[in-house]
Amino acid sequence: ERPFQIALIPGDGIGKEVAPEGVRVVEAAARRHGIHLRFTEIGWASCDHWRAHGTMMPADWKAQLQGMDALFFGAVGWPADVPDHVSLWGSLLQFRREFDQYVNLRPVRLFDGVPCPLAGRQPGDIDYLIVRENTEGEYTNIGGTMWPGTEREVVLQQSVFSRRGTDRVLKYAFELAASRPRHKLTVATKSNGMAVSMPWWDSRADAMAADYPQIAVDKQHIDILSARFVLQPDRFDVVVASNLFGDILSDLGPASVGTIGIAPSANLNPERSFPSLFEPVHGSAPDIHGKGIANPIAMIWSGAMMLDFLTDGTGAGRAAHDDIVRAIEGVLREGPRTPDLGGRASTSELGRAVAERL
Amino acid sequence: ERPFQIALIPGDGIGKEVAPEGVRVVEAAARRHGIHLRFTEIGWASCDHWRAHGTMMPADWKAQLQGMDALFFGAVGWPADVPDHVSLWGSLLQFRREFDQYVNLRPVRLFDGVPCPLAGRQPGDIDYLIVRENTEGEYTNIGGTMWPGTEREVVLQQSVFSRRGTDRVLKYAFELAASRPRHKLTVATKSNGMAVSMPWWDSRADAMAADYPQIAVDKQHIDILSARFVLQPDRFDVVVASNLFGDILSDLGPASVGTIGIAPSANLNPERSFPSLFEPVHGSAPDIHGKGIANPIAMIWSGAMMLDFLTDGTGAGRAAHDDIVRAIEGVLREGPRTPDLGGRASTSELGRAVAERL
Ligand SMILES: CC(C)[C@H](C(=O)O)[C@@H](O)C(=O)O
Ligand SMILES: CC(C)[C@H](C(=O)O)[C@@H](O)C(=O)O
Repeated sequence: ERPFQIALIPGDGIGKEVAPEGVRVVEAAARRHGIHLRFTEIGWASCDHWRAHGTMMPADWKAQLQGMDALFFGAVGWPADVPDHVSLWGSLLQFRREFDQYVNLRPVRLFDGVPCPLAGRQPGDIDYLIVRENTEGEYTNIGGTMWPGTEREVVLQQSVFSRRGTDRVLKYAFELAASRPRHKLTVATKSNGMAVSMPWWDSRADAMAADYPQIAVDKQHIDILSARFVLQPDRFDVVVASNLFGDILSDLGPASVGTIGIAPSANLNPERSFPSLFEPVHGSAPDIHGKGIANPIAMIWSGAMMLDFLTDGTGAGRAAHDDIVRAIEGVLREGPRTPDLGGRASTSELGRAVAERL
Repeated sequence: ERPFQIALIPGDGIGKEVAPEGVRVVEAAARRHGIHLRFTEIGWASCDHWRAHGTMMPADWKAQLQGMDALFFGAVGWPADVPDHVSLWGSLLQFRREFDQYVNLRPVRLFDGVPCPLAGRQPGDIDYLIVRENTEGEYTNIGGTMWPGTEREVVLQQSVFSRRGTDRVLKYAFELAASRPRHKLTVATKSNGMAVSMPWWDSRADAMAADYPQIAVDKQHIDILSARFVLQPDRFDVVVASNLFGDILSDLGPASVGTIGIAPSANLNPERSFPSLFEPVHGSAPDIHGKGIANPIAMIWSGAMMLDFLTDGTGAGRAAHDDIVRAIEGVLREGPRTPDLGGRASTSELGRAVAERL
């Protein structure tokens, strides 16, 4: 049986520290469930590469990665002489677009042992998934400046939504909602403000809702929706949003259950025409880099999502995923803990502790 | 002495119920501080008007309001046969634009007696102001659809930022931060996603920061900034944001301190070339409309902001504002309470209770 090909891209900062722990746990879980993996470590897509070569990635990066089934990605950005937009648009955002990873999937869950900033919420109360459009919409570098540098200066920025791009991410979200027991889908909008794109986005959601009569669909404006992430987080099941709105919600959701440091994400090309990418939500964290104390749970959990995605259909990946998430739950509840959660354990102690619980 | 001319625009739904309580308290406070007011009640800018005339406002609305110093506004929207975008773009959003109310100011404060969804926060910990750009940016109806109704359909929506529009709201925010003891200003951005408008917005903030060396300026991406509204709300003093980002933050901020139902807002034309508008953040609330149980505090607090703004320079308005806010604090702490805060008092009982405490 051909092993799944995985490019391990540690990137920058703590990306390099959490990546080995991700591999450790993923390999152990895969072994137990008879899933064959082959990791290839990649040093580029990093600011180190930029400093040596003036680009984040080699010219033939796409060819080098084309045979891969997945990219297991740490974090990118920093040191300070590389501007953020260079490091991001030159690696992560390029992967998302050129590998057509149009679904950014982020789970939000409340765990025992993780201090929750919301009062009175219990583990089990909060458990939802954010499906973010990941390749178009508000994120563009299209636009420009009229009368630059003068008092009359006007700056235009274009958002670009396609029916193809919108329908496919909505479809993914509807299917996901249909596969879950609660059958609820929240659609983020702002049709009363962005008066061209968002009424159209709503109309696409309405059109698709007609095909899913079993799903309770709720369109909510992004302002009040953000408020409800804090006030009524238990009412969400699957939430689908445009690129910008999804970006905001998928930091706010994990923050509001206290998990922003351990939240995972999957950047999916569901058709598998290109490799999908799995990465922690946290960044390269220059402030704690080099100390060996970064929490590797986001990387490990992202790895669990990778196993689930890779083996779709066999069930082995789902089982491996569930094992890892259970092991994470156990470690969060009983320790050890890294300093971000009030403990003194190192990155690798935590990785080993999760692996031992499998 | 010429009285200040105030147009009272109750609008729709609970707007009509809370407006009289706002007037009651504002008049009482003004009287005590020797401020002369004259209210003129306006029945349009309402869905009732739309049903009778097919428009939200008469053709000469601007002329009718031009002599006014302020608009004291309830809420607009609903009944259901009037689409949201018609009721809003035909009244509130038109006021904001045509009266050049380019600052939307929203205070966020934690009160004793208001259940806070954040764990462990004490009144006094959280007290910041959101300054939202209110006339341009992401809120436009500019754009259109290519290949409509086909698989190839592409929808473009334009954001429009001007130097004039950006600099003046930044200036307002810098001055406000300079007038407060903490001297902190947070600037919302997303320069790593909206790669034309937001780097430019940042550059305008940087340019202005050079003129305010005493202010600690902190630029934050909207995703992590939303997360910090929940995780570290005590670190904010003044937050300035574009139209869309400000809209999101100014629902999220009040929600995270439990005050979304009682939050006020001021839509300001600081130069006084046009009337400014003061309104609750809550909407017309069709679900509780007609029962006389809506909480009038948002309307009353908005009225306090109106007095402060109107008499700028004399100090009487500031004193009247502070009296009202203290009275609100007292009622929130000791009751009576409307049902939204767990009590049984009516809208007018609450209005009277605040007035009595002045
Ligand atoms: C770093 C940034 C460009 C990125 C985004 O906004 O997509 C990040 O916030 C994320 O959510 O993955
Ligand atoms: C009703 C809507 C158009 C409005 C806005 O988005 O500006 C409201 O949410 C607000 O914040 O005043």
